[in-house]
Parts: sequence; C-alpha cells; structure tokens
Amino acid sequence: MIIGLDVGGTKALGLLVDPADGTIHGRQKSSSAGDGPTLVRTLATMVNELRSDHAITGIGLGIAGLIDRSGTVRYSPNLADLVEFPVTAELTAAIGHRVVATNDATAGTWAEAKLGAGRGCRDFVYVALGTGIGAGFVINGELVLGSNGFAGEVGHMVIEANGPAHITGQQGPWEYYASGNALGRLARDAAAAGAFPAVVQRVDSIDSVTGYHVVELMRSGDSDALSIFDGFCKEVALGTSNLVISLDFGRVVIGGGLADIGEPLRAGVEYWLGELLLGREHRPEPEVVLAELGSDAAALGAAYYAIT
Amino acid sequence: MIIGLDVGGTKALGLLVDPADGTIHGRQKSSSAGDGPTLVRTLATMVNELRSDHAITGIGLGIAGLIDRSGTVRYSPNLADLVEFPVTAELTAAIGHRVVATNDATAGTWAEAKLGAGRGCRDFVYVALGTGIGAGFVINGELVLGSNGFAGEVGHMVIEANGPAHITGQQGPWEYYASGNALGRLARDAAAAGAFPAVVQRVDSIDSVTGYHVVELMRSGDSDALSIFDGFCKEVALGTSNLVISLDFGRVVIGGGLADIGEPLRAGVEYWLGELLLGREHRPEPEVVLAELGSDAAALGAAYYAIT
Repeated sequence: MIIGLDVGGTKALGLLVDPADGTIHGRQKSSSAGDGPTLVRTLATMVNELRSDHAITGIGLGIAGLIDRSGTVRYSPNLADLVEFPVTAELTAAIGHRVVATNDATAGTWAEAKLGAGRGCRDFVYVALGTGIGAGFVINGELVLGSNGFAGEVGHMVIEANGPAHITGQQGPWEYYASGNALGRLARDAAAAGAFPAVVQRVDSIDSVTGYHVVELMRSGDSDALSIFDGFCKEVALGTSNLVISLDFGRVVIGGGLADIGEPLRAGVEYWLGELLLGREHRPEPEVVLAELGSDAAALGAAYYAIT
Repeated sequence: MIIGLDVGGTKALGLLVDPADGTIHGRQKSSSAGDGPTLVRTLATMVNELRSDHAITGIGLGIAGLIDRSGTVRYSPNLADLVEFPVTAELTAAIGHRVVATNDATAGTWAEAKLGAGRGCRDFVYVALGTGIGAGFVINGELVLGSNGFAGEVGHMVIEANGPAHITGQQGPWEYYASGNALGRLARDAAAAGAFPAVVQRVDSIDSVTGYHVVELMRSGDSDALSIFDGFCKEVALGTSNLVISLDFGRVVIGGGLADIGEPLRAGVEYWLGELLLGREHRPEPEVVLAELGSDAAALGAAYYAIT
C-alpha cells in the first residue's frame, strides 16, 4: 500500500492506495490550519490512521506552492507558515517513514498519467484551472519536475506583454485572462457595461458576481453568459496553444476546480485550440479531455510519486 | 564512426564524427538545391565520401522544418520540394544504411547536450535565434521530440495577443519581436523615426538597414544602436522567461546565427531574464550561456541522434 497526502490552503486529504490499480482503501480529511509543527502533528495522525497494520511502501505529499527537489516549500501564498519549514523531514521523523513532497499540480499530473486521463499518452500537459492556473507535464513518459522542482508555473506565462498589470506585478500573464478569477472579472466587466443583464437581476451588487454565475446562466441558455464563456475558453486555448506549439503535446488534460464545468469547457477549449494552433493543416490536433480524478488527484499522484 | 547531415535551405553539410569524443574526422559541403531525388543523390555522394572504409554505426539527418517521428518532412518553408518526399527511406535505400531524421534545431540541441554548452545539465532550453526562432529542449536528461516530433516551434508562441499580424497570420508571436528579422525591423523603425542617424549615413535607403548594422554600430559604441539592441534583448528574454517559468530550466543556451554576436547578446538576455522572471527571490536564476558548436551543431547532433 502507498499513502498520498494533499495539503491545500485550508484542507488536508490523505488516501491509502493500492499501487497495483489505484483503488482507495482509506480516506482521511482534516484542516490544514496552523503552523508547521501543528500541521506535522495533523498529518502524522492521518498517516497513522491510514496505515493501521498495512505494509507501506511509499508516502508522498502534494503541497500548493513552489516545492524544491529536496522537499522544502520555497514559496506558497496560501501556506505561508510552511515556507522554509522542513515539513518532509519533520513528518519523516514523526512517523518513522520516509516522506517525499512535490507541488500539488505536479502530483495531480502524475495521478492522471497513472490512473486517469493521461493514460497511454507519453507527452501530455495537465492544465489546472482554479483560482489561478497551474500545470504539469509528462514528457517522454516521465513526470517533469524541472531543474529545481518548480515546473508548471504556467499561469505566469506572459501572453499580452502590454496588457494590464496583474497582482504578481507582471503585465498580461495568462492567469490574468484564463483563471477562475478571470472568469469572474469578465462577468463583472460585462455586467458593468450592461452586457449581462441576467446576472444583474440575481445579485445585490455587481461586485458579488463570480464565475459561478456565468456557468449557471450558461447552463440555462443565457446568450450573454454563453458569449462570455466562449471568450474565456479562447483565453484558455491561447495559453494552451503556446504550450502545445512549444512542446508538441499529443493531449491536453483539463483539470482543477473549473473542470467541474465539464463538456462546455472541454468543447470550448478544443474549438479555440483548433483555431489558434498554427499549422493545423500539417499536424494532428491534440486531444482535449477532462481530468478524471477530481479532487483526489493530488493525493493519488503524491502517493505514486513516492514510488516513482 | 557516425555521420551527421544538416540540410538547410541552401546548403548541406556532412560530418564524419567519432562518437567517443565528438572529434570531426571528415567534412563535406554541398548545395541543397534541387528536387527530392536530386538531394538524395547529393547526400548519398557526401555519405560515400565520408564513410570511405570506416565502420559506420549511425547516420542522422537534420532538416529545417517539421519532421515527424517517421522521418518525413511535413512542412518546410525553405525546402518545399522535400515536403512529403520520403527522404529518409530513399537515402537509406541509396546508401544501404539506415538513416534517421529530425528537425535541425532539435539536432543542434542534442549536439550541445553531448558536446557543448548543455553538458552536465539535465534540464535546459536551446534557443536558436536566426531569421526566425526555433528551440530544442533537454528535460530529465533526454531530448524532447514531442508527440509528433514537432517540439520546439517556440517562435509561434504568442506574447502579445493584440499585437501586430505576423506573416504566419498570428498576432504577436515571439518571432515577430525577437528574431533576426525583428532586429532589422526595429532598426528600420528607429531610422525612419529619426532615432538612428548613424545608420542612415551608411545606407542608400532605410529599406536596406538590417540587424547587422545594429550589431556593427553597437560595437563602435553608438548609443542608439545600444538602445535598440537592449530592447531586442528584452524581447528575447520575455519569451525565454515564458519557457523557464513553465518548465523550470536550469540553463538557457543561446544558439543560431545571432549567437555570433556573442557576449553582448548573452549579457543582455541574462539581464532582462533576471528582470522578467517571476519569483527571482524564491528561485535560483538559470544560467544564460552561448552555444558552443556554431554551424556544426545540427550535423553533429543528427549524428548523435542516430545512436540515441
């Protein structure tokens, strides 16, 4: 058996997994709140509950942020207490078993490669659309960590060099246009311009409009919502096209919280990728598919990463 | 011994190489003009001159264009007669030895990995700055071909989504801003605006200003040329930053014809990459180095590709 842990900004998830087929035999949830030592105690309790009397061959940890190859968190906006805290070493000491750690999107990519939408593809990109944009890569059949372990920070790829300033200080990064936050902003901009009346009827203030409203109204057939969402899919496809033209991925796996939108997102990205990807008359178009493992992806992938 | 062939838009180069250390034991040059069968005869003659009575363990071919994994040229603006012509199969038949083929920048990357500026680095990008921009990648110590063999077409990465239309039909691809052609355009724009008087004195017409004038005048200390070149280095760094943030390369190898500019180009890209790469306080900055193998890179890399 293997154990995977996923530490996000507010929650931690632990899974006991059979590596032969990915079957989940145990599941633990907890808050991820508190300082480093508190989190180590939380995770140690989860591991001890999960392992019970099973023989454990690997324990992996997926964490939101920049995790270096030694397993140290170098930067994490949502887990500030973990930065430079030796979480893998401390957890290893607390449970008496070696722990390895990597970025949560990187872990999710490996889960999709082993058990989900990446199976059978040696060169794919996993695009995780959430509050921001992360990614992971499988190239030549191997998980890509990068020189330091920081591969996948594609949300900071600039696609509009003279575009608006983002909270990162960059002008025009992909994340500004194609994240969950961006979908909300597109909706508020449309509402403020009078181009999205259906949403204005549903909220007290335009400030409270989010991407969820776009999705809900799109599902009920509102043409303004459909138009906003189509523009959003074009932005997702533009950055994806940059990755595909550079690395010639045969498949694009769409994950992250926005993947819950499902087929409209997949079909929209597929359409615009076909329009934007240069040389479609010379190259097979990559498959565009939805991730299959949902919110278990990072924990599952962390478990498999421990035995890779 | 191994043999590498490099077929460009006008010239073909063949090298006889000792795979143990990369020593070049024979060199043949020729025109690459003519249709597919003519080129096959040309290359067969080169191979027969080179191999003489040596035992040959691999023969590789680097070609400018999109070469699929079967060795077929699918698209090549400069070698139109080769598109869909079975050049590797025909050459294999003509010389009685298996030939493999890949893109010339991909081959150049592998040469730098084996013998040049990429040695000792498991994750690097080779950026070939010429008329356009190509690239190659070594990730996890392996050469990246991509799903179809088309990896490296980074010149078509969009960095200014609302930018000017390029000859490819895209708006704002990196190649528009940071290729050798782009350096010439920057110089002509400056000259036309009266901001580059030194170059106007040297030419009959602003239309004849090229990137070479910028480099020449920069070397003599002209401040306008220095300013134009600095802006050019920023554009090179912007696309490079997109690649580094996405894939966390530990080293950037600058190759292609513009690498002949040398240290001013390397230093300019290094400076701007430091300014543009997000998170410099959290991550080691990648090394920026010049390619070492010059115009032999593609033929050398093609030879090593044949035995990889």
